[in-house]
Amino acid sequence: RIDPDRLWSSLMEMAQIGPGVAGGNNRQTLSDADNEGRHLFRRWCADAGLEIGVDRMGTMFMTRAGADPDALPVYIGSHLDTQPTGGKFDGVLGVLAGLEVVRSLNDLGIRTKHPIVVANWTNEEGARFAPAMLASGVFAGELSLDYAYARTDQEGLRFGDELQRIGWVGEEEVGARRMHAYFEYHIEQGPILEAENRQIGVVTHGQGLWWLEFTLIGKEAHTGSTPMAMRVNAGLAMGRILELVQAVAMENQPGAVGGVGQVTFSPNSRNVLPGTVVFTVDIRSPDQAKLDAMRARIEAGAHEIAKELGVGCAVEAVGHFDPVSFAPELVERVRASADKLGYSHMDIVSGAGHDACWIAKVAPATMIMCPCVDGLSHNEAEDISKEWAAAGADVLLHAVIETAEI
Amino acid sequence: RIDPDRLWSSLMEMAQIGPGVAGGNNRQTLSDADNEGRHLFRRWCADAGLEIGVDRMGTMFMTRAGADPDALPVYIGSHLDTQPTGGKFDGVLGVLAGLEVVRSLNDLGIRTKHPIVVANWTNEEGARFAPAMLASGVFAGELSLDYAYARTDQEGLRFGDELQRIGWVGEEEVGARRMHAYFEYHIEQGPILEAENRQIGVVTHGQGLWWLEFTLIGKEAHTGSTPMAMRVNAGLAMGRILELVQAVAMENQPGAVGGVGQVTFSPNSRNVLPGTVVFTVDIRSPDQAKLDAMRARIEAGAHEIAKELGVGCAVEAVGHFDPVSFAPELVERVRASADKLGYSHMDIVSGAGHDACWIAKVAPATMIMCPCVDGLSHNEAEDISKEWAAAGADVLLHAVIETAEI
Ligand SMILES: NC(=O)NCCC(=O)O
Ligand SMILES: NC(=O)NCCC(=O)O
Repeated sequence: RIDPDRLWSSLMEMAQIGPGVAGGNNRQTLSDADNEGRHLFRRWCADAGLEIGVDRMGTMFMTRAGADPDALPVYIGSHLDTQPTGGKFDGVLGVLAGLEVVRSLNDLGIRTKHPIVVANWTNEEGARFAPAMLASGVFAGELSLDYAYARTDQEGLRFGDELQRIGWVGEEEVGARRMHAYFEYHIEQGPILEAENRQIGVVTHGQGLWWLEFTLIGKEAHTGSTPMAMRVNAGLAMGRILELVQAVAMENQPGAVGGVGQVTFSPNSRNVLPGTVVFTVDIRSPDQAKLDAMRARIEAGAHEIAKELGVGCAVEAVGHFDPVSFAPELVERVRASADKLGYSHMDIVSGAGHDACWIAKVAPATMIMCPCVDGLSHNEAEDISKEWAAAGADVLLHAVIETAEI
Repeated sequence: RIDPDRLWSSLMEMAQIGPGVAGGNNRQTLSDADNEGRHLFRRWCADAGLEIGVDRMGTMFMTRAGADPDALPVYIGSHLDTQPTGGKFDGVLGVLAGLEVVRSLNDLGIRTKHPIVVANWTNEEGARFAPAMLASGVFAGELSLDYAYARTDQEGLRFGDELQRIGWVGEEEVGARRMHAYFEYHIEQGPILEAENRQIGVVTHGQGLWWLEFTLIGKEAHTGSTPMAMRVNAGLAMGRILELVQAVAMENQPGAVGGVGQVTFSPNSRNVLPGTVVFTVDIRSPDQAKLDAMRARIEAGAHEIAKELGVGCAVEAVGHFDPVSFAPELVERVRASADKLGYSHMDIVSGAGHDACWIAKVAPATMIMCPCVDGLSHNEAEDISKEWAAAGADVLLHAVIETAEI
């Protein structure tokens, strides 16, 4: 078993970096805090005897040598970046549990046949630069490096420039590595495990996603002296589209979600009808056909709403991944490890996107989940217990050891 | 008659300061650009022989002496501050036409019985600091100086601190001045004069306004892994309230407007349901009962919507003025001046709020309007012709001369 206290104290130490405003973290990708977090992780890895590799997306690969020089490594990965008002565990748990697995193997003097690599993927969150899971998407060959470098944040700063600025442009070609297997341990970010009172989520599938960025063009005009009949009201169109997204998600229950997290009015002045409203719709489903049908309904409906109001409407897909099925033999190994360790478990579908979803395209991959309090994530109040954290790390340890011997 | 070319060239010179991004201006109140605009105006006034007074709200009062030392001054005022993406004429026309009246009197060697004061009111727009017409509101005794100083912008900067920073905290007690009469010349900011092909709007009334700032508290949560049933969706509530505002305004046609110019999501991340949504509803009507009924309907409806979605909802009135009737004898004098000068005219109600609306509480006040292209204002594309600008300034000159002799 892993050392619950050591895992927890590493989590708490990492959480010191990039503190939030309400007990959580703001360690957004490619920020100074991200850089600081990377340095701390590198130091811990060096102390554990791991060798560093960094690719051109800034992803860190920390290697523990194996006994067989020809064996492909077993990867354990997740991310150290956070939402602007993020929790202490989303992503971080998976990376530091990977480190804890290595530390435990060191303690136990176990040398696996396959090397073990602990990975910290760059920009998983997609909060600063859309889309999410950017580095793993490039790694899997789904997105190009040029595309990734050209992503901009709300200040217009480019991903490529910011990666350079914090000093993490590595030498390695992205995606050149091959993997024996990929494991990702993550908090559920949803309410199911807690409600069902299970310690372990055996993740069989991941939902697919579309991020649709709408740009609505209205007529910037005075809120007082512009008669109702003359208004070209992009804000009103946005309001109606938000309702449409909700309606479409509700029609597709169970097994779908839809919502809007980002809305920006320009010029955003109390007495000016907005000239431009930009917002991003986030829709998800584990069912590909449902997901695509939702997208079509929302786009068509939005264009109708805009047309009726005379508002210009452009839609761009700024994020996408297909629903994914994880590798059955790894899923089974996670299930068996939980059984062997005596942890209660159930199969679940990941509601969120994870780097594992992209890596599943190029390697056998799976995930392990632990519950989180009230299903809350992407919230500084996100919380888990030390025992929950440890149980999943134990399952990870066992599944990884078995996989690294085959 | 005034000198159309001189008026126009002053307008164009002022428009050099705080250029916008699309041909208009960003000279928001208490910015460096505002300071620069004030200095230019002061220099012009000094050249025209005017004496400066500045009150503790930073309002500039530029005095041309009269023949009778006991006579109260006739005021001509408006504002040099602009929206973040504002036009070159909104407010500026009124101040510089006041200066043009004085220059014309100088040219003609006319010495009026009453002094004439050209005023530049601080923070008319209310874009940076709500409410609008802040300095004239304090002048009229409707708002307190402490309240005004404590207003904050979106960066949290205080009005009082910013006024100090740009160096325009004057010595004069606010509201100490008494007025023989107050005139304000302004672009219509609406489509009526142009549609009716009239050169002059004789402003008989102004609409009343409520600015209602809504703060909706949702549950910040993951857009992917949070089931629909668990969401506390403040963004959705906002969307529905925007529809409600539109519906209430439409039910009150003709003679009412309602809209939303400012919406702010927190944390405003694509995959986070917002924890907080803040937005401001702007409703107006020349009919007090209608205005208050609209407010009540919107507040009650919003609370219902929020309750249904489990969203917290607080409402604060951040701006208000009653519908106003301008002084009949001044209105008549404006009408007669337009007639005498052979300009086509019609009576209109001001759709926007103006400093004249507050000053009407403490002095005989009225307004003159000229058309603007497509009724467009609070938009960098706001436009008027030199001839339109001149016609209103001529009417202003004549109405002021007559008033200053009585
Ligand atoms: N796990 C997680 O929050 N990933 C961010 C991408 C997403 O929105 O699902
Ligand atoms: N004239 C003008 O645009 N004033 C700003 C206050 C308002 O919104 O009416």
